[in-house]
Amino acid sequence: LCSITVGYRKRSIDLELLRQKIVNEGDLIHPDIVKVDMFLNHQLDIDLLDEMGKEFYRIFKDCSITKILTIESSGIAIACFAAKYFSVPVVFAKKGSNRNIGPDTYTTEIFSFTKASTYTAIVSKKYLSSDDRVLIIDDFLANGKALTGLLEIVKQSGAEVCGVGIAIEKAFQPGGKALRDAGVRIESLAKIESISDGTIVFSE
Amino acid sequence: LCSITVGYRKRSIDLELLRQKIVNEGDLIHPDIVKVDMFLNHQLDIDLLDEMGKEFYRIFKDCSITKILTIESSGIAIACFAAKYFSVPVVFAKKGSNRNIGPDTYTTEIFSFTKASTYTAIVSKKYLSSDDRVLIIDDFLANGKALTGLLEIVKQSGAEVCGVGIAIEKAFQPGGKALRDAGVRIESLAKIESISDGTIVFSE
Repeated sequence: LCSITVGYRKRSIDLELLRQKIVNEGDLIHPDIVKVDMFLNHQLDIDLLDEMGKEFYRIFKDCSITKILTIESSGIAIACFAAKYFSVPVVFAKKGSNRNIGPDTYTTEIFSFTKASTYTAIVSKKYLSSDDRVLIIDDFLANGKALTGLLEIVKQSGAEVCGVGIAIEKAFQPGGKALRDAGVRIESLAKIESISDGTIVFSE
Repeated sequence: LCSITVGYRKRSIDLELLRQKIVNEGDLIHPDIVKVDMFLNHQLDIDLLDEMGKEFYRIFKDCSITKILTIESSGIAIACFAAKYFSVPVVFAKKGSNRNIGPDTYTTEIFSFTKASTYTAIVSKKYLSSDDRVLIIDDFLANGKALTGLLEIVKQSGAEVCGVGIAIEKAFQPGGKALRDAGVRIESLAKIESISDGTIVFSE
């Protein structure tokens, strides 16, 4: 058991590496939008995702999580690696109203600023119930619309939200503050305080 | 190193377990459609996915794979677990023409029988090049339209397709045979020979 033990004693995540990747590999496609297709939203850096999953486990391991909830597509990979450490299933909310997942669903409407339109997020009632203790995981938190939708879905199920794990939070947008003020425990691995003149500043 | 070695010596995947899950947890929503939302397409059974990833590694480990290509959303989880064993990045093709992934893309049109409509699959040129040796991974193979689209994207990139790993193949539909006849190496973990009167029969 020696090697495994040593493995788990390693520092859980090199948050500095995540920050460096955001700075070095992110594309500033708009004054306040950083695109991280290189490692999180199109190409996936597996070792980084695994470290992020491990870090979410370190943070929430005492919460008796029974299920991880995310939303397709970019949340799935991080949620999967976290779920491996928690030994619980992932459920991903599906987007779009015409998805054939049966009649018994929790649904909510989510406004996407990126696409300037509203979509429906759906979870089958089979996979989330009042017995569940849920960790929500997603890639980005900015205005908080997707997260608010996922919280609404958990509320409909009667399950308890034990926490929220976010890869990258844009702290200069209102979602994180508003939801924390409402009592939601949100842990973000990288918090961007500001983006100006091509420079990304992180919160401590 | 003893424990890790023992771990890797374990049988790579219990294919019988995958079959049992298809039979016991799959929903026959149509005479020839089995829905596996319980463990693969909506809720994700992480240990099973990890075993599937390990099995794809066992099959293709000598192919010098440099990248795993899949398509959102249901291929992402399997691809990620496989990628962990191969130590290579995943790239997932995005669906829809209005996705903001830059001007330099490989694109192809894919017809979906499930939705009876055509969508565009896109991969940024940044993440696939002629140097790559690609393993394509997807959840289902039936008519082969999605897989044909992914093969077309790899062809546009100049990369080499070393193989295709599929979780569940519906062998009574024409995709697998046609693409194997065209010379593509396809390995499916569960091959469904027929579905009739609610009974699923697997190929040996």
